[in-house]
Amino acid sequence: MKKHNFSAGPSILSEEVFKQASEGVLELNHSGLSILEISHRSDEFIAILEEAKALVFEFMQLDNEKYEVLFLQGGASMEFLRIPYNLLNQGETAAYLDTGKWASNAIKEAKLFGNIHIVASSKDQNYNYIPKNYTIPDDVKYLHITSNNTIYGTQIQYFKKENTSLICDMSSDIFSRTLDFSMFDLIYAGAQKNLGPAGVNLVVIKKEILGKTNRPIPSILDYQKHIDAQSMFNTPPVFAIYTMLLNLKWLKNQGGISVIEKRNQQKADLLYREIDRNPLFEGTAQKEDRSMMNVTFVLKDLTQQGKFAEIFKKHHISGINGHRIVGGYRASIYNAMPLESVKVLIQAMQELESIKK
Amino acid sequence: MKKHNFSAGPSILSEEVFKQASEGVLELNHSGLSILEISHRSDEFIAILEEAKALVFEFMQLDNEKYEVLFLQGGASMEFLRIPYNLLNQGETAAYLDTGKWASNAIKEAKLFGNIHIVASSKDQNYNYIPKNYTIPDDVKYLHITSNNTIYGTQIQYFKKENTSLICDMSSDIFSRTLDFSMFDLIYAGAQKNLGPAGVNLVVIKKEILGKTNRPIPSILDYQKHIDAQSMFNTPPVFAIYTMLLNLKWLKNQGGISVIEKRNQQKADLLYREIDRNPLFEGTAQKEDRSMMNVTFVLKDLTQQGKFAEIFKKHHISGINGHRIVGGYRASIYNAMPLESVKVLIQAMQELESIKK
Repeated sequence: MKKHNFSAGPSILSEEVFKQASEGVLELNHSGLSILEISHRSDEFIAILEEAKALVFEFMQLDNEKYEVLFLQGGASMEFLRIPYNLLNQGETAAYLDTGKWASNAIKEAKLFGNIHIVASSKDQNYNYIPKNYTIPDDVKYLHITSNNTIYGTQIQYFKKENTSLICDMSSDIFSRTLDFSMFDLIYAGAQKNLGPAGVNLVVIKKEILGKTNRPIPSILDYQKHIDAQSMFNTPPVFAIYTMLLNLKWLKNQGGISVIEKRNQQKADLLYREIDRNPLFEGTAQKEDRSMMNVTFVLKDLTQQGKFAEIFKKHHISGINGHRIVGGYRASIYNAMPLESVKVLIQAMQELESIKK
Repeated sequence: MKKHNFSAGPSILSEEVFKQASEGVLELNHSGLSILEISHRSDEFIAILEEAKALVFEFMQLDNEKYEVLFLQGGASMEFLRIPYNLLNQGETAAYLDTGKWASNAIKEAKLFGNIHIVASSKDQNYNYIPKNYTIPDDVKYLHITSNNTIYGTQIQYFKKENTSLICDMSSDIFSRTLDFSMFDLIYAGAQKNLGPAGVNLVVIKKEILGKTNRPIPSILDYQKHIDAQSMFNTPPVFAIYTMLLNLKWLKNQGGISVIEKRNQQKADLLYREIDRNPLFEGTAQKEDRSMMNVTFVLKDLTQQGKFAEIFKKHHISGINGHRIVGGYRASIYNAMPLESVKVLIQAMQELESIKK
């Protein structure tokens, strides 16, 4: 019996992707080899890499003369480091918007490489909202933002063009909604939410922003070296990239981002409606900043927790507990989450309500 | 029809491991979840990580009070950077033995962080041997060596205790032979040869060598932070670690390192014997430094290449071409390579000989 997996990441992918990835581990497309044993220099793998790259360009509608698509390792946390290492000279200033734990971690790493100006922070209310009316100093090298904050269930709803390079950590909501991706000079995302399994990062970078710092950059941290080597500076995480490709193809077969966005909206609307209706629950994020990917809520009466956990178990609901920083519940309803599973969760919430009465 | 895969890495794993990994992608041990969707904080994954760590300690016979076992990302190339970042102060000196491309790459990265003294190099003969009679200056922080050089087919046969910390890149021969692992203060290996699929690095480190530099270390590069977080500083590459565990268990079920070493020796002896016997071929590495993992050889008469390629194809032999730096052929016969496949390769070599006659 498969579970309804609301885990925040690593998280659900479609059954079709699991099935194809599983087959690839036995044998990749009648090649006589497992995806785990093929050389990263083989024709088979180069075709996989090229197709994944082409799909990212297609989804983002970006000019492949100006941008480059990279598949790197180390998680988004590695990009927290690579970004200032590549883009910020000592003595220069970068601006960061502090919307939670991951944004704070990015800030912490960047501070080793230059001056960091925090344009705004929602730390005062445990990051339950997205700060909006901030000003960016004139002389900053870039503004770094985090589009979706898994822990707190907040999401930036509107992006505005800024007078500086816009860099965005889209780890937890990439390809969940249509966006003008050309607003950004650098977009990055750890794969383990909407892209694929843990173990690969997508980095999309406008090439002209590189080459403007004067510190020596270690090879493995140097975006230009990865561009020159076409994501093959060293052995890439072959299986994670292959499964990402399967997932990107699945997304395309669903009708692409605009179709998945409607479904995501429908799932989120249903769930938030129940949270607002059901007297036992309340949402933790400010309504205007609510995330379409991670729906956070609490039980008003904590003595009901045990009963609620039992109901989850009965319905095969898993991965629903909130992050330890926030507590309560977090339903991650990424692209691959079926509407049916959201309905089962709502049913569980209503079941608790009916017991209470 | 499965191929005989002599690829240098990513490379062959046992059929049993492919089968179990494939099943895990569909569903992990009746958990109702794919290995690709389980949270890295779940009990299931923590048990996987702990078991993998315990097996590494068991194989290495190391004291887990003194050493730590880490599973990190970025390939061995990331450790080329992490090692000097963590261990070498600006102004201090580290010694490196230059035995090939990967050793040279490690040297290149280390030069950004301190003074690098190259104790010896075999570059003069395109790295076809392992330099032996070198002296290590008194004041170095560590000596870095590469135990096996895939490209050139050379391998260090004897390790001697040195008057400094010994650091070894064992990417391409780890767990292929019994060793006194306690000679080393830091051992690291990209997984994609004897350990598992590409996408995870094993790092085994003596804890007392850390904390002696004064530069600020970015979190993701800081071994101490990874130790404190027990390889969960950020989302680890779950599938790659799981498959590594399956492979370590397979190795244990084979009888462990001493049993696999005998098989590796047998496979290598057979193949080298044929290279030395067959008048069409010659080995490229100096005999005393020949690798038990990567057997490099050339055809004396290059006009035979096309015919040899046809014979390979007929026998379903793949991944046998040498690295572009050396040319010729390279048969990588890692732990999981069956003796049968080595015999098929020898048969192919003899078939070419019989056609020639």
